[in-house]
Amino acid sequence: MLEGIIEAVRQNRPLVHCITNFVTANDCANALLAVGASPIMADAPEEAAEIAGRCDALVLNLGTPSAGRLTAMELAGKRVNEAGRPVVFDPVGVSASAFRREGARKLMEGVRFSAVRGNISEISFLAGHPAGFGGVDAGEKDAAADLAGRRRLAASFARTIRAVVVITGETDVVSDGEKIFCIRNGHAMMSRVTGTGCILSALIGAFLTVDAVRPVEAVAAAVGAFGVCGERAYEKAAQAGRGTGSYHLALLDELSLLREDSMGGIRIENC
Amino acid sequence: MLEGIIEAVRQNRPLVHCITNFVTANDCANALLAVGASPIMADAPEEAAEIAGRCDALVLNLGTPSAGRLTAMELAGKRVNEAGRPVVFDPVGVSASAFRREGARKLMEGVRFSAVRGNISEISFLAGHPAGFGGVDAGEKDAAADLAGRRRLAASFARTIRAVVVITGETDVVSDGEKIFCIRNGHAMMSRVTGTGCILSALIGAFLTVDAVRPVEAVAAAVGAFGVCGERAYEKAAQAGRGTGSYHLALLDELSLLREDSMGGIRIENC
Amino acid sequence: MLEGIIEAVRQNRPLVHCITNFVTANDCANALLAVGASPIMADAPEEAAEIAGRCDALVLNLGTPSAGRLTAMELAGKRVNEAGRPVVFDPVGVSASAFRREGARKLMEGVRFSAVRGNISEISFLAGHPAGFGGVDAGEKDAAADLAGRRRLAASFARTIRAVVVITGETDVVSDGEKIFCIRNGHAMMSRVTGTGCILSALIGAFLTVDAVRPVEAVAAAVGAFGVCGERAYEKAAQAGRGTGSYHLALLDELSLLREDSMGGIRIENC
Repeated sequence: MLEGIIEAVRQNRPLVHCITNFVTANDCANALLAVGASPIMADAPEEAAEIAGRCDALVLNLGTPSAGRLTAMELAGKRVNEAGRPVVFDPVGVSASAFRREGARKLMEGVRFSAVRGNISEISFLAGHPAGFGGVDAGEKDAAADLAGRRRLAASFARTIRAVVVITGETDVVSDGEKIFCIRNGHAMMSRVTGTGCILSALIGAFLTVDAVRPVEAVAAAVGAFGVCGERAYEKAAQAGRGTGSYHLALLDELSLLREDSMGGIRIENC
Repeated sequence: MLEGIIEAVRQNRPLVHCITNFVTANDCANALLAVGASPIMADAPEEAAEIAGRCDALVLNLGTPSAGRLTAMELAGKRVNEAGRPVVFDPVGVSASAFRREGARKLMEGVRFSAVRGNISEISFLAGHPAGFGGVDAGEKDAAADLAGRRRLAASFARTIRAVVVITGETDVVSDGEKIFCIRNGHAMMSRVTGTGCILSALIGAFLTVDAVRPVEAVAAAVGAFGVCGERAYEKAAQAGRGTGSYHLALLDELSLLREDSMGGIRIENC
Repeated sequence: MLEGIIEAVRQNRPLVHCITNFVTANDCANALLAVGASPIMADAPEEAAEIAGRCDALVLNLGTPSAGRLTAMELAGKRVNEAGRPVVFDPVGVSASAFRREGARKLMEGVRFSAVRGNISEISFLAGHPAGFGGVDAGEKDAAADLAGRRRLAASFARTIRAVVVITGETDVVSDGEKIFCIRNGHAMMSRVTGTGCILSALIGAFLTVDAVRPVEAVAAAVGAFGVCGERAYEKAAQAGRGTGSYHLALLDELSLLREDSMGGIRIENC
């Protein structure tokens, strides 16, 4: 399923509109450029829908929300829905405040998403049972039981919202409600750099523009490909005794060096 | 004409106020520091004019526009006009939305610019004949005919707005309506990193504070010097098999290492 | 006094909420992650207090102020005051505009700070005698007399506001009004990268969450530790002939590599 997808992204040069936080916007733009996509960052309500309407994909990110940015997301999301193109949602820290909870609720109601990506606590919250998976402490539970719970959560939430759901963690789970993929790529260092989640959500937007594969497979490919970059970045930067600054840079390097032959390292399985 | 200009910037330590997008603000600030300038980023309408009034140059960048940021640009631009100091305009993605088009129109009417820098599609749009040069596809046309068109456009638009006009591309064109310079520096990798256009516009602001050279020459020097950095960064980062993250960092490195003897690599010619 | 503080930060994994400028937010988040803290960036007035109420420390940074960001700072500061947890203030460019002066005045009135960090011109201004130390030109005065002035200023302002005051410069001065520490770490290259002040203020927030040491000592440890990183970054990046981009990255690397044995390089003395 992965054959040709990297090259398809590079050839399509999809225009990806990100309405995103100001902390990691630079990384998201550079990550999109690195895989051959063209980023546009525009978060004013006055222009968001117009710009989104010309783009190949839209990525909405809940980090550093503002009233204006949330309005822009809703307007842009609806426009891209009308155009029938992919919209990705990254509910960064959704349970951290009433403002985010309410903002996310309105977006989930007003916009149809093609894919939603978050960690276990974010996706649990969105799915309406925030206590069920122990929030941010989920990672400390027994891994096998936890993975079973993540698979069930991803699949059931995917069916509910008719979208591809991604729960990132040590093992990433991707489901469209029918298929469930477990992806065992990536490296723990990725969580020591801010924005790796945001970057992945942006990449998912770019990969979803490839028509030749099913959405769930395009999303799984993005997750796996970024995970491979995380592993290679570790080999280059961290094993050489360098720190998280170098690792951050190496991640972006590896995205730009990603080619078809990189896809051999992706460990995706039905689960 | 280039003799001494780098050292003049380093000795002047010009204070450059940027009202700019949140995606590349960090790079612009670091690029200004790298050439010895002092950056100030301030985009609130409540303070923009007061801060601009104390600065040596002002750079207005249309990326991630907001109503407040556009107001700040207009207020700051007028104040710096009164003070007789340089104002640079970077019309990022000006044709992407009515909001940007209208924002740019008001700025062009209300503020006198010393220099305007954009790619062919942005400058064509500003000059009022967006269709004339094929928009973003201009690069795919016959190069010689295209360059002739760019030279004419830069010179005529420069005469119209009485500013130095820069059209960046494979060959950069700089004109004040009288002189026309073609600059054949830089590297294609520069377009694979976000913010290289924004950085150049910020540098143009810093270079315009050097009184000893004519504005068109100061601008050409900034374009050429940054192009030389782009070439050297390629030699160091990309040829060593590293990716766009390393190239991004190497670009900033080279700016900080830029000295008079670097200017020998600049290929500026009257054209 | 420094024994164990780095490991305590890494074990506590303090949640540090930063209401900060968009220019260096990414660096602040990565610096906090590098020392084992968890950053949250959230600047909307609608959510700032709620998020701050769940955090272990709050850092308010006056760069790129907006009306909304200033309101968020005040609301969040008051909430964290009620919770009895540390609040740090970084008055970036406070004298640059009436908007910043008035914003800072309201924050100083409405919020009790645990620590305030700035350069000599910022702290002089806040303390109410901006002319007394020559503003930004202070560094050009006789160094010994200047240091005596800084010590007196830090101690007297600390007594007035009942906070730890940090004046950063070639020699950093830290005082709680009783103790005065002079810290001779760091490297001049740090001032050639934007955001090193912002990063230090964020780190101070993280270090203040360690209960086992007195606040003035926790702050001095943060200042000294970051200074050591500045020195090591110079050894790695700048001496190898690389520029400020590499130095910037090396600074973040060194923060992530900081361990107890690094603390031996800290040169803190009572002064």
